Amino acid sequence: MATQGQVITCKAAVAWEPNKPLVIEDVQVAPPQAGEVRIKILFTALCHTDAYTWSGKDPEGLFPCILGHEAAGIVESVGEGVTEVHPGDHVIPCYQAECRECKFCKSGKTNLCGKVRAATGVGVMMSDHKSRFSINGKPIYHFMGTSTFSQYTVVHDVSVAKIDPKAPLEKVCLLGCGVPTGLGAVWNTAKVESGSIVAVFGLGTVGLAVAEGAKAAGASRIIGIDIDSKKFERAKNFGVTEFLNPKDHEKPIQQVIVDLTDGGVDYSFECIGNVSVMRSALECCHKGWGTSVIVGVAASGQEICTRPFQLVTGRVWKGTAFGGFKSRSQVPWLVERYLKKEIKVDEYITHNLTLGEINEAFDLMHEGGCLRCVLAVHV
Amino acid sequence: MATQGQVITCKAAVAWEPNKPLVIEDVQVAPPQAGEVRIKILFTALCHTDAYTWSGKDPEGLFPCILGHEAAGIVESVGEGVTEVHPGDHVIPCYQAECRECKFCKSGKTNLCGKVRAATGVGVMMSDHKSRFSINGKPIYHFMGTSTFSQYTVVHDVSVAKIDPKAPLEKVCLLGCGVPTGLGAVWNTAKVESGSIVAVFGLGTVGLAVAEGAKAAGASRIIGIDIDSKKFERAKNFGVTEFLNPKDHEKPIQQVIVDLTDGGVDYSFECIGNVSVMRSALECCHKGWGTSVIVGVAASGQEICTRPFQLVTGRVWKGTAFGGFKSRSQVPWLVERYLKKEIKVDEYITHNLTLGEINEAFDLMHEGGCLRCVLAVHV
Repeated sequence: MATQGQVITCKAAVAWEPNKPLVIEDVQVAPPQAGEVRIKILFTALCHTDAYTWSGKDPEGLFPCILGHEAAGIVESVGEGVTEVHPGDHVIPCYQAECRECKFCKSGKTNLCGKVRAATGVGVMMSDHKSRFSINGKPIYHFMGTSTFSQYTVVHDVSVAKIDPKAPLEKVCLLGCGVPTGLGAVWNTAKVESGSIVAVFGLGTVGLAVAEGAKAAGASRIIGIDIDSKKFERAKNFGVTEFLNPKDHEKPIQQVIVDLTDGGVDYSFECIGNVSVMRSALECCHKGWGTSVIVGVAASGQEICTRPFQLVTGRVWKGTAFGGFKSRSQVPWLVERYLKKEIKVDEYITHNLTLGEINEAFDLMHEGGCLRCVLAVHV
Repeated sequence: MATQGQVITCKAAVAWEPNKPLVIEDVQVAPPQAGEVRIKILFTALCHTDAYTWSGKDPEGLFPCILGHEAAGIVESVGEGVTEVHPGDHVIPCYQAECRECKFCKSGKTNLCGKVRAATGVGVMMSDHKSRFSINGKPIYHFMGTSTFSQYTVVHDVSVAKIDPKAPLEKVCLLGCGVPTGLGAVWNTAKVESGSIVAVFGLGTVGLAVAEGAKAAGASRIIGIDIDSKKFERAKNFGVTEFLNPKDHEKPIQQVIVDLTDGGVDYSFECIGNVSVMRSALECCHKGWGTSVIVGVAASGQEICTRPFQLVTGRVWKGTAFGGFKSRSQVPWLVERYLKKEIKVDEYITHNLTLGEINEAFDLMHEGGCLRCVLAVHV
C-alpha cells in the first residue's frame, strides 16, 4: 500500500488523563518494526476494562494512552519477519498473545502467553520498548497491546488473529474480548457437562455469553443473578432459565441458591468483578464438586475471602482470562462458528456509534440496556 | 461370640471436658443396632484433629466424648441387616463413610458420602439419634463416627472397611486417616503428573505422605517447607528433594519459591491448617496452571484470602478430605499396596504406647520428632 513504511496520521481517541473525556486527536502512527503489524481498525467496541483504566482506578494505567481492545480491521502493512499475516488480511487484534514458543504456550495448560507481556503491560512495543503512537513527537502509550480506539494501530504479530474475510467486521469485532471470555469460561475453564446446574452472576455481555455457552454445553438449569431485574427478559434469549435478584431476598444469595438447588450448583461464574459476589459464587456451589470460575476483573487491591472448609469439602475456585482461548488459533475458529450461526454475536450489539461519539458510548455502558456499543472508526 | 447382643463394659479414654486430661474409664458399649457394627479396637493412633476437638477450639466439639479416628480392629458383632462384614473380620473404621447410594457417592466426583453425616456430626448414631456409649447410664458422645480411643466401639456399617487379615493391625491402623489423606491429595485431588514441581508446606505425617505420593507420581522436584529444620533429614526418606525454612528468608516464602522455580510450582499442598500458609501455598504456584490443595484443617472461623488476580491468571485453589479416597472401596486397596511394599506405613510410626498412656501420647504430638504414636488398646 502507498502508506507502507510511512508514518500515518489519523484520528484516534486519546485519554490524556484519568476520568477526563477522551479527545479525538490527529495521531502519528509509526510503521511496524520487525515482528509488528499495522492494522487499519474498522470497528471497535467498548469493554468495562477500558472504562476501568480510563477511570484512573487501575494502578497500572498509563496516560496519555489510546484505549480499546475489542475490534476488527484489515492489515495495512507488516514489519520484517512477519509471515503469518499480510496486507489486506482481515484480522482481530488480540490482547492475549499466542506465540506458540514460550513456556506458557508450550505447556498445553494455559492460554496466557508470556512473550510480549512485559512490553504490553507498560504500554510499549517489545523491540525497542517505545510507543508507535505520538502527537507532534510526544509519545502516547499503547494499551493492552491493542489500542483499538484509533484508525490505525500497531500490534505484535503474536497478537493478531487472521480471520475469514467473509465475516462482517462490524459484528465479529466482539470476538476480541467479551463473548469469547464468557463462552470459554464455560467450555475451557469449567468444562461444564450436559445436565449441569449453572449460576451466572451478572447479566452483561460476559454473563450472557456464559449462559449461551452453558446452554450449548447442555446445562439443565441456568440461574441468572443480577440486581437489575430489567435484564432478565433479554437474558432468556441467551439461555437463562431462572432469575434471582439478591434485592428480593433477605438471606444471603448463596443460601437462596443452595436451597433452590438441593445443595448448590455444579458450576458458577462471577461476571461482574465484585469480590463479595465472588465469595457468593463460590459458596453457592455444591459440596463435593461445585466449581466456581472468576471471570470478572476486580479493582486493584481488593481480595477474595472464604472459609477454607469450603474448599476442603470439595469446592474448586478458579479463574479465567479470555476464556482460556488461545487467541491466534481459536479466534478464527470462533469466527467460523459465528458464520455457521452456531454462536451469537449480533445479539450482543445494542448500539452503534462512531469513534467521534466515543464519550457518549462510555456513558451508555452504565445503562442496564446496553450490552455492546460498536463504533465505526472510519466515517 | 459370647458378647453378642450384650452390653460390653470395657476401658475407654473419656474426654470429660475440653483441655482436661483424658480419663480411662469403664464404659458400657451397647450392642450394634440395625446397620451398625461393633468393633474390638486393637490399635489406634492419634491425629491432630483429635487434639483440636479436645482443645475446646472446635465449636462443634461435644463433651463428654470418646475421641479417636485412626485405628484398626476386629468385628465383634453386627446389627440387623449388616451383610458386608461379619464377626472376626479385620477392619479399619472410617470417619468418612461410603454408602454407595447417596447423591455424593453416585456422583462419581467426590468421596464425601452424606448418608450418616447428620448423626456423626452431633456425636450419635443415625437409627435412634442416641449414643451407644454410657457410663452408669450417662451417655458419652461419639466422635467422627469412629471413637477409637475405646476397647470397643460401635460404628455405622457404611463406615467400615474390611481389610486383608494378613495385614498387621498395629501398622495399618494409620491407613484410617493421615497417610491416605496425603497420598490421595496428590493422586486424587491434584492428580500430579510425572515431571511436576511440587511444594509441601508442613512436614508432619500428612506432609510426608504428600511427598511420598508425589515421588510415586514422578515429581521431578519436591520442595519441603517447615519452620522446624530438624524435620528435614527425615523428610528425605519420603521423597523431599529440597528444603526451605521460612525463618531463613526475609522475603515472603511464596516469593522465594517463585524465584527458585522459574515462576512457581505446578502443585502445592498445605498440610498444617494455617490460613496464612494456605495463601502462601496458592501464591507460590505457577501462573497459568499451578494448583494448590488445602489439606490441613484450619481453626473454626478463620478465613483464607488472596487477590482474585491469582485465580484469573490461572491458578486453581482446591481442597481435599481423606485425600478424596472412597473409604470402604479404597482403604482395602491401600492395605494391599502396603502389603506389596508399594506404600510406606511403618516409617510414620515413631512411638508405641498403650491406651493408658494416652495423655503422654498427646504431649508427644507437639514434639517435632513425633509423627504417629500408636496405642495398643488391649493390654
